[in-house]
Amino acid sequence: MNFEQVNIPEKLVPDNYLQLGLAAQRSKQRSFKELLEKRKLPKNGWSDERIEELVHMLASLDSNNYPHKVGLGEREARIACKLVARRHYNFGHGIGRSGDLLEAQPKAAGSTLLARLTNALILDLIRGIGLPSCAGCFLVPMCTGMTLTLCLQSLRKRRPGARYVLWSRIDQKSCFKAITATGLVPVVIPCLIKGESLNTNVDLFREKIKSLGVDSILCLYTTTSCFAPRNSDDIAEVSKLSKQWQIPHLVNNAYGLQAKEIVNQLECANRVGRIDYFVQSSDKNLLVPVGSAIVASFNESVLHDVASTYAGRASGSQSLDVLMTLLSLGRNGFRLLFDQRGENFNYLRENLRKFAEPRGEIVIDSRFNSISLAITLATLAGDQMKSITKLGSMLHMRGVSGARVIVPGQNKTIDGHEFLDFGSHRSNLQVPYLTVAAGIGITREEIDKFFDIFNKCWNQIFQTKNEKIMSLLETTIK
Amino acid sequence: MNFEQVNIPEKLVPDNYLQLGLAAQRSKQRSFKELLEKRKLPKNGWSDERIEELVHMLASLDSNNYPHKVGLGEREARIACKLVARRHYNFGHGIGRSGDLLEAQPKAAGSTLLARLTNALILDLIRGIGLPSCAGCFLVPMCTGMTLTLCLQSLRKRRPGARYVLWSRIDQKSCFKAITATGLVPVVIPCLIKGESLNTNVDLFREKIKSLGVDSILCLYTTTSCFAPRNSDDIAEVSKLSKQWQIPHLVNNAYGLQAKEIVNQLECANRVGRIDYFVQSSDKNLLVPVGSAIVASFNESVLHDVASTYAGRASGSQSLDVLMTLLSLGRNGFRLLFDQRGENFNYLRENLRKFAEPRGEIVIDSRFNSISLAITLATLAGDQMKSITKLGSMLHMRGVSGARVIVPGQNKTIDGHEFLDFGSHRSNLQVPYLTVAAGIGITREEIDKFFDIFNKCWNQIFQTKNEKIMSLLETTIK
Amino acid sequence: MNFEQVNIPEKLVPDNYLQLGLAAQRSKQRSFKELLEKRKLPKNGWSDERIEELVHMLASLDSNNYPHKVGLGEREARIACKLVARRHYNFGHGIGRSGDLLEAQPKAAGSTLLARLTNALILDLIRGIGLPSCAGCFLVPMCTGMTLTLCLQSLRKRRPGARYVLWSRIDQKSCFKAITATGLVPVVIPCLIKGESLNTNVDLFREKIKSLGVDSILCLYTTTSCFAPRNSDDIAEVSKLSKQWQIPHLVNNAYGLQAKEIVNQLECANRVGRIDYFVQSSDKNLLVPVGSAIVASFNESVLHDVASTYAGRASGSQSLDVLMTLLSLGRNGFRLLFDQRGENFNYLRENLRKFAEPRGEIVIDSRFNSISLAITLATLAGDQMKSITKLGSMLHMRGVSGARVIVPGQNKTIDGHEFLDFGSHRSNLQVPYLTVAAGIGITREEIDKFFDIFNKCWNQIFQTKNEKIMSLLETTIK
Amino acid sequence: MNFEQVNIPEKLVPDNYLQLGLAAQRSKQRSFKELLEKRKLPKNGWSDERIEELVHMLASLDSNNYPHKVGLGEREARIACKLVARRHYNFGHGIGRSGDLLEAQPKAAGSTLLARLTNALILDLIRGIGLPSCAGCFLVPMCTGMTLTLCLQSLRKRRPGARYVLWSRIDQKSCFKAITATGLVPVVIPCLIKGESLNTNVDLFREKIKSLGVDSILCLYTTTSCFAPRNSDDIAEVSKLSKQWQIPHLVNNAYGLQAKEIVNQLECANRVGRIDYFVQSSDKNLLVPVGSAIVASFNESVLHDVASTYAGRASGSQSLDVLMTLLSLGRNGFRLLFDQRGENFNYLRENLRKFAEPRGEIVIDSRFNSISLAITLATLAGDQMKSITKLGSMLHMRGVSGARVIVPGQNKTIDGHEFLDFGSHRSNLQVPYLTVAAGIGITREEIDKFFDIFNKCWNQIFQTKNEKIMSLLETTIK
Repeated sequence: MNFEQVNIPEKLVPDNYLQLGLAAQRSKQRSFKELLEKRKLPKNGWSDERIEELVHMLASLDSNNYPHKVGLGEREARIACKLVARRHYNFGHGIGRSGDLLEAQPKAAGSTLLARLTNALILDLIRGIGLPSCAGCFLVPMCTGMTLTLCLQSLRKRRPGARYVLWSRIDQKSCFKAITATGLVPVVIPCLIKGESLNTNVDLFREKIKSLGVDSILCLYTTTSCFAPRNSDDIAEVSKLSKQWQIPHLVNNAYGLQAKEIVNQLECANRVGRIDYFVQSSDKNLLVPVGSAIVASFNESVLHDVASTYAGRASGSQSLDVLMTLLSLGRNGFRLLFDQRGENFNYLRENLRKFAEPRGEIVIDSRFNSISLAITLATLAGDQMKSITKLGSMLHMRGVSGARVIVPGQNKTIDGHEFLDFGSHRSNLQVPYLTVAAGIGITREEIDKFFDIFNKCWNQIFQTKNEKIMSLLETTIK
Repeated sequence: MNFEQVNIPEKLVPDNYLQLGLAAQRSKQRSFKELLEKRKLPKNGWSDERIEELVHMLASLDSNNYPHKVGLGEREARIACKLVARRHYNFGHGIGRSGDLLEAQPKAAGSTLLARLTNALILDLIRGIGLPSCAGCFLVPMCTGMTLTLCLQSLRKRRPGARYVLWSRIDQKSCFKAITATGLVPVVIPCLIKGESLNTNVDLFREKIKSLGVDSILCLYTTTSCFAPRNSDDIAEVSKLSKQWQIPHLVNNAYGLQAKEIVNQLECANRVGRIDYFVQSSDKNLLVPVGSAIVASFNESVLHDVASTYAGRASGSQSLDVLMTLLSLGRNGFRLLFDQRGENFNYLRENLRKFAEPRGEIVIDSRFNSISLAITLATLAGDQMKSITKLGSMLHMRGVSGARVIVPGQNKTIDGHEFLDFGSHRSNLQVPYLTVAAGIGITREEIDKFFDIFNKCWNQIFQTKNEKIMSLLETTIK
Repeated sequence: MNFEQVNIPEKLVPDNYLQLGLAAQRSKQRSFKELLEKRKLPKNGWSDERIEELVHMLASLDSNNYPHKVGLGEREARIACKLVARRHYNFGHGIGRSGDLLEAQPKAAGSTLLARLTNALILDLIRGIGLPSCAGCFLVPMCTGMTLTLCLQSLRKRRPGARYVLWSRIDQKSCFKAITATGLVPVVIPCLIKGESLNTNVDLFREKIKSLGVDSILCLYTTTSCFAPRNSDDIAEVSKLSKQWQIPHLVNNAYGLQAKEIVNQLECANRVGRIDYFVQSSDKNLLVPVGSAIVASFNESVLHDVASTYAGRASGSQSLDVLMTLLSLGRNGFRLLFDQRGENFNYLRENLRKFAEPRGEIVIDSRFNSISLAITLATLAGDQMKSITKLGSMLHMRGVSGARVIVPGQNKTIDGHEFLDFGSHRSNLQVPYLTVAAGIGITREEIDKFFDIFNKCWNQIFQTKNEKIMSLLETTIK
Repeated sequence: MNFEQVNIPEKLVPDNYLQLGLAAQRSKQRSFKELLEKRKLPKNGWSDERIEELVHMLASLDSNNYPHKVGLGEREARIACKLVARRHYNFGHGIGRSGDLLEAQPKAAGSTLLARLTNALILDLIRGIGLPSCAGCFLVPMCTGMTLTLCLQSLRKRRPGARYVLWSRIDQKSCFKAITATGLVPVVIPCLIKGESLNTNVDLFREKIKSLGVDSILCLYTTTSCFAPRNSDDIAEVSKLSKQWQIPHLVNNAYGLQAKEIVNQLECANRVGRIDYFVQSSDKNLLVPVGSAIVASFNESVLHDVASTYAGRASGSQSLDVLMTLLSLGRNGFRLLFDQRGENFNYLRENLRKFAEPRGEIVIDSRFNSISLAITLATLAGDQMKSITKLGSMLHMRGVSGARVIVPGQNKTIDGHEFLDFGSHRSNLQVPYLTVAAGIGITREEIDKFFDIFNKCWNQIFQTKNEKIMSLLETTIK
């Protein structure tokens, strides 16, 4: 709606009062115009009202919202439940078309705009936080794992004869399942253990390329963000191999958009080598509900291969979440969260060290991991290593989520492949440990509360252990 | 919240007034209890208020909504934008876990409940409309095509040596792309042409099984709901082949849950043969926004294979849409829509016949298609066959969406496979035609408006054609 | 926001798709333009989305919603709670100014528009349903009683020497309190009893005018809508008196806008005599939450006196409710409710007669009451008249609200005035009765359910009574 | 709804996951219990979700929300428009009954609870910020002026022979109209001028009491919060008169709840004398939309007189706004706003002084006004006093609202009473001035922006004036 084309009678409102109100609209209208014409993230976040006005206007461009619509097809974006329509701002057509996530829909100009505008804003964000070479990206309304699968599938179309995926081990089920789902053959490259931290075994990558043969290898597959003490893979070195042998390189950057160090690593790896796709979770990086991932590339032309591998039309709900979130944050709002995360990581690390030292534990030095931290539980566990797992549930019971206890001896088979000491990203784990992470959005208050609770749980376990020992001693003496 | 444990002082409200209010709550509480304990679709639809109360309560069971939460992980379902949180009722954790869509999440009891309750209600719905043998089903937050891909991928895990998918031709891109995405090899089984309608070539299926060998065939892949004049595949006969040769059978039932005839066909096919999975779109059948599909099976044990092929955690937004929609409709509300669709299909067919006859056209007799109808455009097109395509855009411009004009000679290559006369599900199409569908949710008013507009467009094209002929004649005479 | 001034790049959406969407906006824009320029109720109701778009746009014209606002006053419409702001669509400034409900606010062009547009639409509605002579009206965000007080106060400014208000008795507390609140002196004119129904005693009005003297009388005060068996006052005859003696005439038309007969009576009374103000409840007539009344007049010039008697700025929330409701109903939607109410009244009366006859009761013939009905409870009560009151609470306990039981002997004193048989609008009531009403919005289903419940309660009381008599007889016999 | 009475099957969610979720509900349930049982403002604000859960639960206790309701009355809280119902959380019955704002409604236990709980929380707030002697209060859904009228009307019922209201002059229309609306006779007590500030003329009050006679005086009527340079009335001294002569004392405390000084003054005045009612605006003090006022008293028994003077049932919407706002702020949230206001007032005053000094103006020393400030415009105006009014609109045009320019010579007649120099609270104003206020919710950023804009406007006017003088000089010289 637009008041300026309406001759509002003086009887309704005095014209000088009205003019003030109309003048105030103009800056808003300018912000809409700029957003749509320049497709850049606004500097400052928008108000809820402004965001909703844009979203409503976009939705009104879709045919299911035309007042005079006549639907004679099998899919007309009819929505039976008013509450559902309302929560989707009357968007119903989804995004993409005929098996291509990036295609426009004739029935749904608004949904098309929504999807493409969102992708443009994400690109602007990615470039702004330290990846100026990023050439393009788009949101896929599937999880990171499935999106990695989609990338592998699209690579297979390019390299139909290749069947191996060289994968630097990381113990997260869906990263691995992303390979097995495609029917391709995973080749696990174990990490190098340095101290207690884990690094990419670049030499082994090279050896495998030679031994398996370049043509039989679909791609090299690395991971940045991960649980300590595993470090972010050395993607610069792997990128060099990728460039040298002309083998595609796929990076699982699950929650790496939130860390300056990883962002820099990606930009640098592209300069010295080759990355075909880097894939990241929307929810973990952009603070939206679970449900989508972002495929990005330094080479725009290869992106479309991935988009056209999605067989159908997809949910637009995730694009809407990301669009609304980015507009509400603005460039400054995201930057603030980004910087605070970095500071909170340092705060967490420092406090974890202070916690560890007097208790005879250490914070493992995984210097190439700037999100997650691991503290050993050697003294606490003693020789009752398995019993230490209850620390995790004790923390959980008290409201701490996300802290994980890793103990030796947890083997696991996934789709026929056995992983020793699953969870630790390595075989032959000796010392149990606990990991915690400073994810984007974490508050200093949460960190403080965590140490309170951690301390209480620690003491409780410690005391129990000592009592057991004492009673054992007593029994022995008698 | 629960008033009954609260001693509301008389100063706030007289007790006898309060008791009346509390009594009214009890029937509501009973409906919640029944829903959760019995997991059946309520007979009558619920009010918006009741639906939202349930949804809010479920969300409050997720850890991101605990008042005392302390998040130390990399994924804590933090939601940055209030508007986004609000439209998701504060759900953030998605569904599934560790690469299994059906697994429970320790951090998210509410999301787990949401997903499983939704699946239970869908199952109850499917059984109630004519598929009592259905053993289980679940919602996948991806489109139908990608869900078919997921099924194929999970079948490959069972039959790693097989590489062919025998597919009864249907000209919808994503159905075909669902195969090529997996890297499997599609074997196209052209339809039999009978009159102008198209039927499954069961004999050719049999021949191909013999010629390619059972072990090399991953599955038989058929489609029910489709555009006329293609008929629903003869899934009963294909099921028999499937049973006889022990080859899996996958059915693309995209919008088949809305048609009694197709539902009966499925139930029957299972009795006489074998169907491993039948997959349907949520948006097309259940009137929710685009974004999810339902995998169902007559054999519960094989369902989990599909769920565990999804590599990651998935969006819960689609489960929420379906849950809210089913609760708002109730069993009776859905049944009403279901029955009305049947009546409206008859109404549309009858009126299409009345429209066709005086114009020298026919409604093609595709008797095994109970959703879509095709009317020939032979006389209208005359020898200007290609020009008839503009009829489609004329209709679209006037608000009619979903009507499609098919003309001969539209060849298309998808992922390396060429399809002659793409769109017509056959080669060597002679007569152009228009298809329209009576999808669930269509109204009689829409059908009437369609014929108004169709008539006007027809006359306009017809007149233009005659004028061209006249002027041609005139030129000739001169 | 207005897309037409924005050059949306082809990269975001193909222009031909966009144009279709934009074309669909134009009919909407036309509806906004027409509403604001013509200030007439739309023929058909608007969709929720359209209503909210208008409301949001109006709110954005208020200074508290300017992006660049700087508030240095004591009242800046700051809203602390987001939820509150949201439910008021960010309206905060209320309506009116400096003690005049109709004045525009320099700070709030949108609120001013909201209030005046609402008044214009109400006027259009009132004229359309049978009061074409109505010259003006406005919404007062106070209850009907307080609005009547406001009218009396404004009349006093015109007639400072007058102190009597001649009031045709109606036993509703707030009608009477509306007089005593002002400090004026009520002169009660008892009704004439005809059969069991009650009519205006016009002769007594005339006598009182003569005996008290014209100048000492502030106004004549009548009531239309009321509980049976009281009839609507004979406002035509009272209007003649008003005209003849030049004494203002105030009509309490609480829920009279919903009845054709009352509307006609008002229009007719104005033709033959004089009505200064007629006041009606918004909630009872327009189905909004309790909270406002409408002052209307056949003489626009006197309306402003009332508006300028309101000492301050008032809530705009009620105007918003009425505006949204009228737009959602449209002229046709209200007309439908209006007509259905008439039919449901006939249905209720007929069924009440069928209920009464076999039980030896009658439906009192109050033919000038077309909303409420009274059925005698003579046989049911027998000589246990007081005990019949429990019938009311029995109905209430079973979900029936609004049915009232009136028994003789309930005297009451209000602000120093004693009313015998309060509730019956008369003294010396003999026969107890029950009243029910067919208000606007009632459904046939409710009426049917009422008779089910009424029947059960009746039988229960009847049986108890008989058992008492029997046991009494038995005792006597023994 | 209450999960604890439901046996949620393990199939839906593992019990240990569910138990964590349920445990998290308990603290929420405790907060509800405590609120309703103790009726005290929570220490910390509640989340939106918690507030809405309470509000929905309250609404579900009203009969219009019973699933089995059968409405046979003339007022059944039917709501025609879904959007309206939604924004009122399905509350429809309003508050109060039969002409008494404090009475419970049998049909609406929830609305009754809503109203009374809100009143209880307001009382707790008032006591907590420095008025521990406050005995009771309630919200009236009318503006402050009309609520003052209501108080006067209820006082008249107690003192029917009295007709004068002794009123310390304040130039705000609705304060005065509050008297004239009642038909009582205002006796204006001009302020004492001390420097340029204005103080209560207590002696004149005393004289008037003597000259008019105690019995003829309905009440003394003072005002606390007001525009500088008028000071808050000396309510302590007036209270002493009130006590001494046993004449009621009514205090207009429009926006006085936000200032520590005024709150202390009220508490003290009650100790040394008598205040019957003090009335304050909800929107100005509690940051809700315009529409209600709060009547408070140190004597609970006299409050009911006011409540029972409201002739009808009133809107509950304002109670809802206040309830939601208070719960969202909590005691601490309000305290923070309250303290910040005080600091911002000091900041504004300091900056105003810095602004005034170099320009040859002064900030008038109205030390008993702790909200509003006045700066003289003597030098700016020069001898073009009237032209200075444009400063106001210049500020307004630039987004500054609430700053008022007062110039000599603006006489005004209200309801027959003439006020010289209206706006200045005095006759014979010499020096023009500008007032600004630091209301609750003002931000430091706003104050800074104000001085930017003020400075620019000042310079512009100053320059124009100088240019005029120069050109005048030039003309003269020539």
